[in-house]
Amino acid sequence: MSSSPAASRPVSTRLSGPVRPSDRARIALRPAEVARITGGFWHERRRVNAETSIPQGPALLESAGNLHNLRLAAGTADGAYRGALPFLDSDVTKWLEAASWQLGDPDTPNRRTLSGAVDRVIRLLAEAQQDDGYLQTWYQVAKPGPRFAELLRGHELYCAGHLFQAAVAHHRSTGREDLLTVARRFADHIDGTFGPGKPVDGICGHPEIETALVELYRETGERRYLDLAGYFIDRRGHGLLDEDDPRGLAPGPDHCQDHVPVREAKTVTGHAVRQLYLLAGATDVAAETGEPELRAAMERLWEAMTTTKTYLTGGVGAHHRWEDFGDPYELPNERAYCETCAAIASIQWSWRMALLTGQARYSDLIERTLYNGVLPGVSLDGRGWLYTNPLQVRDGYEYHGEDQGARRAPWFTCACCPPNVMRLLASLPHYVASTDADGLQLHQYADGSYGGSTADGRVMVRVDTGYPWQGRITVTVDEAGTGEWTLSLRVPQWCREYAVTPTADDSVDSPSAGGAREPAQQDGWLRIRRTWRPGNTVVLDLGIQPRLTAAHPRVDAVRGCVALERGPLVYCLEQADQPGAPRLDDVLLDTTAGLTTRHRPGLLGGITTLVGSGLLRGPGPAPAAWWPYRSVPSGTPDADRAPHDTRAWNGAAVPVELTAIPYYAWANRHRGSMRVWLPTC
Amino acid sequence: MSSSPAASRPVSTRLSGPVRPSDRARIALRPAEVARITGGFWHERRRVNAETSIPQGPALLESAGNLHNLRLAAGTADGAYRGALPFLDSDVTKWLEAASWQLGDPDTPNRRTLSGAVDRVIRLLAEAQQDDGYLQTWYQVAKPGPRFAELLRGHELYCAGHLFQAAVAHHRSTGREDLLTVARRFADHIDGTFGPGKPVDGICGHPEIETALVELYRETGERRYLDLAGYFIDRRGHGLLDEDDPRGLAPGPDHCQDHVPVREAKTVTGHAVRQLYLLAGATDVAAETGEPELRAAMERLWEAMTTTKTYLTGGVGAHHRWEDFGDPYELPNERAYCETCAAIASIQWSWRMALLTGQARYSDLIERTLYNGVLPGVSLDGRGWLYTNPLQVRDGYEYHGEDQGARRAPWFTCACCPPNVMRLLASLPHYVASTDADGLQLHQYADGSYGGSTADGRVMVRVDTGYPWQGRITVTVDEAGTGEWTLSLRVPQWCREYAVTPTADDSVDSPSAGGAREPAQQDGWLRIRRTWRPGNTVVLDLGIQPRLTAAHPRVDAVRGCVALERGPLVYCLEQADQPGAPRLDDVLLDTTAGLTTRHRPGLLGGITTLVGSGLLRGPGPAPAAWWPYRSVPSGTPDADRAPHDTRAWNGAAVPVELTAIPYYAWANRHRGSMRVWLPTC
Repeated sequence: MSSSPAASRPVSTRLSGPVRPSDRARIALRPAEVARITGGFWHERRRVNAETSIPQGPALLESAGNLHNLRLAAGTADGAYRGALPFLDSDVTKWLEAASWQLGDPDTPNRRTLSGAVDRVIRLLAEAQQDDGYLQTWYQVAKPGPRFAELLRGHELYCAGHLFQAAVAHHRSTGREDLLTVARRFADHIDGTFGPGKPVDGICGHPEIETALVELYRETGERRYLDLAGYFIDRRGHGLLDEDDPRGLAPGPDHCQDHVPVREAKTVTGHAVRQLYLLAGATDVAAETGEPELRAAMERLWEAMTTTKTYLTGGVGAHHRWEDFGDPYELPNERAYCETCAAIASIQWSWRMALLTGQARYSDLIERTLYNGVLPGVSLDGRGWLYTNPLQVRDGYEYHGEDQGARRAPWFTCACCPPNVMRLLASLPHYVASTDADGLQLHQYADGSYGGSTADGRVMVRVDTGYPWQGRITVTVDEAGTGEWTLSLRVPQWCREYAVTPTADDSVDSPSAGGAREPAQQDGWLRIRRTWRPGNTVVLDLGIQPRLTAAHPRVDAVRGCVALERGPLVYCLEQADQPGAPRLDDVLLDTTAGLTTRHRPGLLGGITTLVGSGLLRGPGPAPAAWWPYRSVPSGTPDADRAPHDTRAWNGAAVPVELTAIPYYAWANRHRGSMRVWLPTC
Repeated sequence: MSSSPAASRPVSTRLSGPVRPSDRARIALRPAEVARITGGFWHERRRVNAETSIPQGPALLESAGNLHNLRLAAGTADGAYRGALPFLDSDVTKWLEAASWQLGDPDTPNRRTLSGAVDRVIRLLAEAQQDDGYLQTWYQVAKPGPRFAELLRGHELYCAGHLFQAAVAHHRSTGREDLLTVARRFADHIDGTFGPGKPVDGICGHPEIETALVELYRETGERRYLDLAGYFIDRRGHGLLDEDDPRGLAPGPDHCQDHVPVREAKTVTGHAVRQLYLLAGATDVAAETGEPELRAAMERLWEAMTTTKTYLTGGVGAHHRWEDFGDPYELPNERAYCETCAAIASIQWSWRMALLTGQARYSDLIERTLYNGVLPGVSLDGRGWLYTNPLQVRDGYEYHGEDQGARRAPWFTCACCPPNVMRLLASLPHYVASTDADGLQLHQYADGSYGGSTADGRVMVRVDTGYPWQGRITVTVDEAGTGEWTLSLRVPQWCREYAVTPTADDSVDSPSAGGAREPAQQDGWLRIRRTWRPGNTVVLDLGIQPRLTAAHPRVDAVRGCVALERGPLVYCLEQADQPGAPRLDDVLLDTTAGLTTRHRPGLLGGITTLVGSGLLRGPGPAPAAWWPYRSVPSGTPDADRAPHDTRAWNGAAVPVELTAIPYYAWANRHRGSMRVWLPTC
């Protein structure tokens, strides 16, 4: 069976991350060249990803038929096409991207086995590829016919994009050319097909190829790929995807962001993953071309998203129907869609914005989304997945069908999310740190080593922290460069109070101390400029006392409710932890009582819980047994009779203790109710 | 062109209504034999239906292709099948049912024209019908092949049901046999195909044929049809509709109510219209067979629906995706689906429950749903339709695609709702009154004459009222029967105070007076038993002061909000009426101030508005410009810092006057925001 070549090894310790801007890119920051997470919270999540989730991939792709379909296209197997979705190949290439990033990590367990599996899948892809470079099993096998004739739904360019990203990952991690060759052949075929004066003037219904083409340009130096990405961006919003819709049941052109040119768009809209992949690609183009109008559009759209269309968890995409963004402030709690893939896409876009602008707010959102938007999508054991991420599951929730939310599954018929989580976790170190000419920036806090080149040479720091359970972050300089440079630490947007402890031999002052040489945090960055020596240490203490959080009053869905947060974590009540409150739907939180923290190493992989108190509402009498509404005549001065005074419904409420767990850890025990937003009493 | 026979005329003044229980039916009440609405609110709505909506039908069905498809099936036209939905024939038969009920009304305008159009459509159906009785153009023309092979999605029995209902309506209204003959031929074909020992053991994905078969039995006396309805009811819930679902994207079996036998179901679930048509049919079967277990299931399911899954408007079906019921108390305001057809189906079911049980609560729900769940579905001019009925449209709502809600359309690709509204309004008198051996019951209040047979002979009453704008209802006895009988007046569930004025010559006492001979209202009925003489009058005064209404606290979507109601009407704020409040999303209602009523004959066809006062929130500062959430440390004793105290967000709020209109009248001017539930201050 051991037909695979010798296991490939990482070519260097240089970071193999998804975004590597060209030398010409007009950007504020570059991803750190060295980034290794060596311990703590994310190390454990990445360990499970590396030991369980990623290794499971080939077997899952085999049993779901994806690999069989590639063999059909290659002519090496017989039988019927498996599955009825045109984009099944992308499950394969997303897994391949995940496995490739993992191979770039020197700590990867069972490297030889993984490397062999990767090689076998790459060989399948190469065999399935047609002579002219085309590769999509759906149109090769399941629905042979003209290519690129069903751009709205066919996902051909989408699948190509995921192939390109896998190829870039594989090349960066291993130095190998085989998958890159497959990708370039397909890219050249597409480049020969699409564009001004070429056979097809069109775009893909599902953006993805744009960001992939920019990265393929970065990896190969082939300018045509960047130009083609720019072409796809520019041609969007001109109704090229219009179709005859005889059933009248399709979503509008905004679903695919073809309703308005991206430079003119005022808000994020339509299918959330499509929108955010598109914006990641547009940001890549803006980074490489330096085009100010495109950059301004990106900044405007990011702010429109975060201001009006983002859940507290960082999740995006409110609608189950069409997987679309909702209206501004339309953020339903109990029916949040919040597709795991959309949270990942949000991180991918925000990271490109962080590099482009240097602003800390993008990494604020990344942190929030990592912990609370993506991580709930995978179970603690790495084997169970959520496609959608509701913020509330009611008592007695009626599970039915494959609703892809509120219940973990080992895989999905539409399995976009699991390999997406895998590729994000495998490449996670990439999102932690950056450098510029003036120094090094820490965007996220995870035990490990991070470094790269500044104008003053190579710098490296080591991070030690108990984050997110503890707020102390110790940064030690390992390589100090040659002159003064700035160590920038992100002070998270959720943090109200922090302190910086200087090293014993220097004056790195607390910003609260008078006459500090270093400025206090500005726009989210605490910048410490000095001449560093190896061994210098900075200790940042972030205040992580529990917080009560409310939403803007236009978020109708959670009026009168608060959420619990601590540090970067959003908390929730899950049924399993409330022996005294058998009905979560009837729980009220007492906001005047404090919340106590309790670290419980044995619970859910080790979490800090928040314990508060509240009331459990009794069954209140309704005026008519069958009607759940209650009226009083208008103008009633007696407040007790006011209809919105819910005390009238409360019955005999009893005090209860309430235990909250981090939202990312929910749905790891038996099924049961859950809620993030809690009514108050 | 005048190839139609002489216009048909109503055969008698006997009520031609949708439900006519057999003499053997075990029911508490029978629909009144005479029911004519002659003036007032509903007369005007029915006038528009008769003068505008129904006459438009043939042209709309022609331009949408439905009639063309019938000609294709008949072999009298050439061309391609129009439309891509299998149930397009039902648009035709629902219109035909509406037109037939209208022909049963002696006041019908342009009777000859309508009658001619009806005859032409009936001829088309007869010509399209195959020799063996089968009739569905989709499988005859668009997708020829085996019949009844796609029961989950094919809608063959659903279309048959609407044909039967149209045929019953036409026969009852005109005495004509031609459409009934078409219906019976198809019914016999189906009866020869489905059932024990017959070729097919199956049910239709979309219930509808069950209630239609019972009515066809009632009209023809053919017991086989009742048995077949019972078979379809009994076979549901046994997984007959299971399908291989390669995409994994279909809803579960509860979508079609095939997950549990109807007698065992604990709550309403799945596609709302399917569920409610099914329950109407099951109630019909229970009425004719007297089966107690089936009746008990109906009562249980009705209460589950009204207690936990019904909007204040009577609307049902929370989910856009799959058009399904949500979980208990999951009643999102801004994203309510509330399909117009589901409200109509709810009325059809509740009326059958009212007849079965004699209980007033079913007509309470009918009243609420008529005014607030169905009527918003049609514009005041009878030309514009809403498919879904949201309870909130935000400022700057992003209209896109054919989302079938929040914007009126002249017709829909899936045009189920418009002819459904037409048939309900055309048959509306049927739902107003009933009789039993002991007397006459008034379920709804509309100017007109209502009567039928009691044990003491024929009784007739006349109703005069300014309802729903005024609470006074005057009932005058026109035909008094021969002995004592009971006049029963429904005291609406929303009514807290009422008074009854006796006639000058008799002792019909107010229930508040001591020593009254007549009892006070009991379970919603005010029963007045006596010997009546022609000219006797009872005046019922219902208190209709404006009300503030709150929802059960488990309805998370409207926590902290109230709705305004008056009489049977739910009110809303619509942008057009708030010159001082340009942003409805920022309005807060002052519940301590009173609401004043103002009748405005010139506004929206004549409505009574409610005028209140409140605040317009200013733009409040957020701690981070891009993040719409705000936190405080837990345990903060200072209430002003409590995060759920929205004053922190309010900015400089300014007092505003707020004018509410009845919800049924919204979306009749330009587009703009609207909301039913109002946050309070």
